[in-house]
Amino acid sequence: MKKTALLIIDMQNDFVGDSAVLPVPGADCIITPIRSILNHFREKKLPVIHILRIHRPGGSDVEFFRREIFSRTPFAVAGTKGADVIDALAPIPGEHILAKTRMSGFLGTDLDLLLRSLEVEHVVVVGIQTPNCIRTTVFDAMAYGYDTILVSDAVAAATPEIHEANLRDMAAIGVSLIRTDECIQMI
Amino acid sequence: MKKTALLIIDMQNDFVGDSAVLPVPGADCIITPIRSILNHFREKKLPVIHILRIHRPGGSDVEFFRREIFSRTPFAVAGTKGADVIDALAPIPGEHILAKTRMSGFLGTDLDLLLRSLEVEHVVVVGIQTPNCIRTTVFDAMAYGYDTILVSDAVAAATPEIHEANLRDMAAIGVSLIRTDECIQMI
Repeated sequence: MKKTALLIIDMQNDFVGDSAVLPVPGADCIITPIRSILNHFREKKLPVIHILRIHRPGGSDVEFFRREIFSRTPFAVAGTKGADVIDALAPIPGEHILAKTRMSGFLGTDLDLLLRSLEVEHVVVVGIQTPNCIRTTVFDAMAYGYDTILVSDAVAAATPEIHEANLRDMAAIGVSLIRTDECIQMI
Repeated sequence: MKKTALLIIDMQNDFVGDSAVLPVPGADCIITPIRSILNHFREKKLPVIHILRIHRPGGSDVEFFRREIFSRTPFAVAGTKGADVIDALAPIPGEHILAKTRMSGFLGTDLDLLLRSLEVEHVVVVGIQTPNCIRTTVFDAMAYGYDTILVSDAVAAATPEIHEANLRDMAAIGVSLIRTDECIQMI
């Protein structure tokens, strides 16, 4: 049987919940679906990877187009509460945490090596936000040869239009789009 | 002054023109704008990089989600006329040709090293198609720190809706969207 890993992207205090300094619209609504999927992966003892944006204090590793906003509102700084996974989805022992400084979980990280080491062939992607960190990670996962499943009600974007347009483009390259209940049934 | 390079993506016989085996809708309409921009870069003696999809005969290096179509209709095979740049945009001596097997020009290639070697800080992106090879290359260019300019009437997608939705997402992360005449004026 082919092994499936869950990739939970950027569900961190600085982006989700009441204390978020850069709240992503819609992110609060996907906590419950992600929690259901996470519990299912835990029960099945399948790999869970919490992919997090983590920046150095001072922001020397921030994308050039986010430097200005970081200088005004530092976000996802290593060692701060804001960079932690939200309590509802907090990692437990045995789960993997992977830090990134860019949108894609594959860029400048060992995500591909980690997935190969875990003998993963399928990935289920959830988190925020659809056009950026989700889409770049999904396109890279497909490029690296991982059969990729996106849970459409467990990812969020600024507007429904942006969300839907991006789902359409991902479906067009062969990404499987399913809903939370289907994910729990089929994994 | 900061140096700007032109990245022309996938304008190959197998995808564009009457002999295309996998024609990209709208691609024929962007030949003239790209030709104008290419001529301008040649006059200014600025770097031009023709980024091409090139696959091994047999398709061992094709993305898993395109294997089936490749087995029916081989495309962009090394050494074939179909893999060549279309005549209207044919490279001239001094221009760079960069082969890729994935959507992004940066994935598994030396594009970042080449741009650094050329001391390029800005890239102008044109070619096909907007949601896939264009967008992944643009997002990676931004992630690698290149100030990225997309010429909106020199890229093409299957439908205007897909084209516009992708332009909006790219503008949202700070990509500059300009038209061909503006490109020629400002570069």
